[in-house]
Amino acid sequence: MRFTSQTSTDGVTERSFTLGEIPGVLWTPEDAEPRALILIGHGGGQHKQAPGVVGRALRLAAECGFAAAAIDAPAHGDRPKTAEHDRIITEMRACMADAGDPVPLLAELHTLLAAQTVPEWRSVLDAVGDLGPVGYWGTSLGCALGIPLVAAEPRIRAAVLGLNGTSLASAEAAAGVTVPVQFLVQWDDERVPREEALALFDALASAEKTLHANPGKHGDVPAFEADSALQFFARHLG
Amino acid sequence: MRFTSQTSTDGVTERSFTLGEIPGVLWTPEDAEPRALILIGHGGGQHKQAPGVVGRALRLAAECGFAAAAIDAPAHGDRPKTAEHDRIITEMRACMADAGDPVPLLAELHTLLAAQTVPEWRSVLDAVGDLGPVGYWGTSLGCALGIPLVAAEPRIRAAVLGLNGTSLASAEAAAGVTVPVQFLVQWDDERVPREEALALFDALASAEKTLHANPGKHGDVPAFEADSALQFFARHLG
Repeated sequence: MRFTSQTSTDGVTERSFTLGEIPGVLWTPEDAEPRALILIGHGGGQHKQAPGVVGRALRLAAECGFAAAAIDAPAHGDRPKTAEHDRIITEMRACMADAGDPVPLLAELHTLLAAQTVPEWRSVLDAVGDLGPVGYWGTSLGCALGIPLVAAEPRIRAAVLGLNGTSLASAEAAAGVTVPVQFLVQWDDERVPREEALALFDALASAEKTLHANPGKHGDVPAFEADSALQFFARHLG
Repeated sequence: MRFTSQTSTDGVTERSFTLGEIPGVLWTPEDAEPRALILIGHGGGQHKQAPGVVGRALRLAAECGFAAAAIDAPAHGDRPKTAEHDRIITEMRACMADAGDPVPLLAELHTLLAAQTVPEWRSVLDAVGDLGPVGYWGTSLGCALGIPLVAAEPRIRAAVLGLNGTSLASAEAAAGVTVPVQFLVQWDDERVPREEALALFDALASAEKTLHANPGKHGDVPAFEADSALQFFARHLG
């Protein structure tokens, strides 16, 4: 793991890194050992320094004394698309131009991305060393890629997930998730049918799982849910 | 309003009162003016000093600096059953002994109780005077009786409701609720079908409403939901 830059603002240190081909960012509280580490999975079309990712990381570090890490998912941010990514994306565009249903191709893309990103996240965990108990926070694409990660990685002990459903996230992988989960649903999500979101929540094997549903579309998650996610992580990892 | 007894524990003053035929309890922080007042509606078969009611009241006063009030619903606690209550309860017992469906009779009982308790709660609000902005916290029977109250009483500015559905709580009254609501659902509720609970949440007209669903039966609401309710009231009334 090679750190390539470092800045410090309002008590939080932000360091960019590369680990092999993976570009990432690590946020840590400036004046104390982190009490826990939260992995932040960005949404589709976003990247490791999208405003929503940075905002969560800064609050985790400043308000909870937690470290946070984000990486670009394959084909996102600073990372190239492979021929396989290009093929699926081209087919999706053709499908949509033809008024077809792009969901099966999008699901194929998510499966491909998950197969790549799960071992990448695990190598990041190996490389950063012990920063305390680990959580995962990712919705939408970050949920689809996070569920197989949380199922596979025993160091992850709590997760905030959601804004996805059984068409684009793996209910089979969800059945392998056993840690406490807070799961977000947008009640009028234009991208995720409500029953598919509820079915994904149902599929989680966690003894403690809590669903938070709010009115509005995919992008309308109310600000108080970020407060609630911080409280959730503080309860389980703090 | 006549206060009949007063005790003080851990910074919280608890005063029993009667207002006409209504017996109630008022909790206030000992050392400061209350910042808000929460009306607590007890569950079916419970009363104004059931452990869950008292526990909520003490936390509201001690942790939030709020006042809290509870009254016995008609036919509960220290209050007599009328001939009308007796008739419905007798018919319910006969119905159940006959392996019939008691839900229509229970709905009739709830409608009768709501018609009585809504004006009672409003007279309590008149009598206690201004203790700050008002909230309502009631689940199960406390939700069925609370929805028409919250819809009718403009002084109530936020409510925690839930553990009920469209069979036993009025979706029509819910359509008159416009204040922020936090709504609890038990995912495996043996008394409230999930779809009826979700339909009641849907029926609320509030622009801000948030649904919290957790695995388990009617009585299995996790302890962290009480923390979350305190935060909800602090956000809206604090």
